[in-house]
Amino acid sequence: MINIDRLIEDLAKVREKSPLVHNITNYVVMNNTANALLAIGASPVMAHAVEEVADMAAIASALVLNIGTLEPSWVKAMVIAAESAHRAGIPVVFDPVGAGATPYRSDTSAMMLRECRPSVIRGNASEIISLLNASAKTKGVDSTASSDSAVASAQALAKDTGAVVVISGAVDYVTDGARTGEVRNGSPLMSRVTGMGCTATAVVGAFSAVNPDLFEASLHAMAVMGIAGEAAASGAEGPGSLQMRFLDALYNLDETVIRQYIR
Amino acid sequence: MINIDRLIEDLAKVREKSPLVHNITNYVVMNNTANALLAIGASPVMAHAVEEVADMAAIASALVLNIGTLEPSWVKAMVIAAESAHRAGIPVVFDPVGAGATPYRSDTSAMMLRECRPSVIRGNASEIISLLNASAKTKGVDSTASSDSAVASAQALAKDTGAVVVISGAVDYVTDGARTGEVRNGSPLMSRVTGMGCTATAVVGAFSAVNPDLFEASLHAMAVMGIAGEAAASGAEGPGSLQMRFLDALYNLDETVIRQYIR
Amino acid sequence: MINIDRLIEDLAKVREKSPLVHNITNYVVMNNTANALLAIGASPVMAHAVEEVADMAAIASALVLNIGTLEPSWVKAMVIAAESAHRAGIPVVFDPVGAGATPYRSDTSAMMLRECRPSVIRGNASEIISLLNASAKTKGVDSTASSDSAVASAQALAKDTGAVVVISGAVDYVTDGARTGEVRNGSPLMSRVTGMGCTATAVVGAFSAVNPDLFEASLHAMAVMGIAGEAAASGAEGPGSLQMRFLDALYNLDETVIRQYIR
Repeated sequence: MINIDRLIEDLAKVREKSPLVHNITNYVVMNNTANALLAIGASPVMAHAVEEVADMAAIASALVLNIGTLEPSWVKAMVIAAESAHRAGIPVVFDPVGAGATPYRSDTSAMMLRECRPSVIRGNASEIISLLNASAKTKGVDSTASSDSAVASAQALAKDTGAVVVISGAVDYVTDGARTGEVRNGSPLMSRVTGMGCTATAVVGAFSAVNPDLFEASLHAMAVMGIAGEAAASGAEGPGSLQMRFLDALYNLDETVIRQYIR
Repeated sequence: MINIDRLIEDLAKVREKSPLVHNITNYVVMNNTANALLAIGASPVMAHAVEEVADMAAIASALVLNIGTLEPSWVKAMVIAAESAHRAGIPVVFDPVGAGATPYRSDTSAMMLRECRPSVIRGNASEIISLLNASAKTKGVDSTASSDSAVASAQALAKDTGAVVVISGAVDYVTDGARTGEVRNGSPLMSRVTGMGCTATAVVGAFSAVNPDLFEASLHAMAVMGIAGEAAASGAEGPGSLQMRFLDALYNLDETVIRQYIR
Repeated sequence: MINIDRLIEDLAKVREKSPLVHNITNYVVMNNTANALLAIGASPVMAHAVEEVADMAAIASALVLNIGTLEPSWVKAMVIAAESAHRAGIPVVFDPVGAGATPYRSDTSAMMLRECRPSVIRGNASEIISLLNASAKTKGVDSTASSDSAVASAQALAKDTGAVVVISGAVDYVTDGARTGEVRNGSPLMSRVTGMGCTATAVVGAFSAVNPDLFEASLHAMAVMGIAGEAAASGAEGPGSLQMRFLDALYNLDETVIRQYIR
């Protein structure tokens, strides 16, 4: 499904244009996310004050919203930033971290689907199922369902919302409702590093900034995550070294590595 | 004092049950803490909004409260979460970071002892002494006293509060007022990595979730920290590589390593 | 320009006195900043609540203010902390992250120049130019200008404010308006790790705590950053390993390494 030449083209564009990606994200992953964006060649900025999010989104090339450590003032800023992003015509990528784990996360996610009108939604299987079905259970922020089981939900969610929907898991799925693609790269060790999903969302932001076909952009971003993660895991002695090697792998990613690892 | 077989049993339980540990902790260490919990096999979640902490604590297996970067809205959330944790019957682990450094930290710690009724308290010597004695001095968040000097305070605090009290330092002490155990593992280099104490508190949370004898659970958690830290320090070139190797060591910790390092 | 003997003397003082550096900084870099301060031998504390910042600054040896993820309550705390720092006679180091990127950041930076009366200001070229000239453009938090182009602005800013001004970039410049020094160490790879500028600001804080000649202290701090970064980059495979090796390099920095690398 993945056109390797077009993937390489998008990666080159990210590095050439170094798009400014405005993140309103959670405390746990801000550092990882910023480092991953820098490593892949994008330019991250974190800003959450209602006093400035509209201005920051207006000069950015993509907006990433992540509710991992949500609270009302941050959610308010996300809605304001999304409005500004839509006015500026830039993609809005949404990560519904922990949707289904608490009513507050589920309700906020549902509100944000309506108010922020995301261009891309990326979550794990539990989160994506929960966006469609309030009765789904999420254990904290980890998935209790396999990504395969959520594909139909993702397709329905894509049709409902008009967003590209990405499920990450052992296999990643990307769908716009009509097309559905898969990424079979990655390593189980990635799930032992916090914020790898959030980092994927941020990288989707970077690729969405350079390729207006958001289905393709998301697929390419997930492939980059999976390939860099798999390359990093090869030789890692555990999650600590994986995390370090992952940033190195993003930085060094090139056609040779991509062709070597892609499935 | 440490029964190695029971330590190994607890470690296996953490990995098998992957307990959800709800952390309301400080900004500096959220990433470390989450990664350490994932590396040891637990499932971390960070959530601090008053809108959801009761719900999150209710589905968790342990609650960890850490005042490292406290402010009133976070403290309020900690009290609400603790109430929910007690209703759910899960352990509440409290880290009084910097108690004694400012009146606000000392007063908040004293209030939390009363209102949150912690099951386990883990701090450095200065912090533990300060919980009993408002005149003790703490330099920022680092200890100005040796852990040995605080043992009597820890025992008194345990008797006063009914909590297991853990002092970390060159030697770690764990006491429930009646029993007092020691952990003699670790490395001085660990004190050059931020948040190692906070990570210990989170790991105590994970072990408390699987062993209802909280004295034993805390002792096992501190032994795991010390052994992983000591294994990581062997071969580390400084605090950067120690931090990376520590997560790898937690992930790879097994009976052989434990028997090799434990004192 | 740099007197190597005096640089080594300052480094020894940081390690001997382990000055408490009170940071009110951004979420992205808190962990890095704390780790860099620990690695170089200082003692970091992060505290932002208006309830305690005056007390914390009063027991600290330097105060570092960084607006990377500013919001009104944090800015208010910065102003209160700065007042306390001036009363206590300790240096106030200011990092105007993203000044020029949004009106809120520019206005806040201008207000803080007046209200916090910083002893040292460290920024990239865009930020320093923007402090003097509201029409300068900043792309997010990265500079769009070379450090050379900002030297005149830095000198003017130093004369205006009485602060030592530091511009970091390919070449770092330090000026008190009368004297201007350069640091030619470092590596381009450092710009691919988030928060290296913020870390520089924190290290300036540590050196300012031990050397009352803040021009010299700032120059020494920037040399330490550049040398450790350059040593770390030699042998790094990308930004992930650079970050790890940088902390090791700070920890291991000694006269031999300094004399080997300094230009």
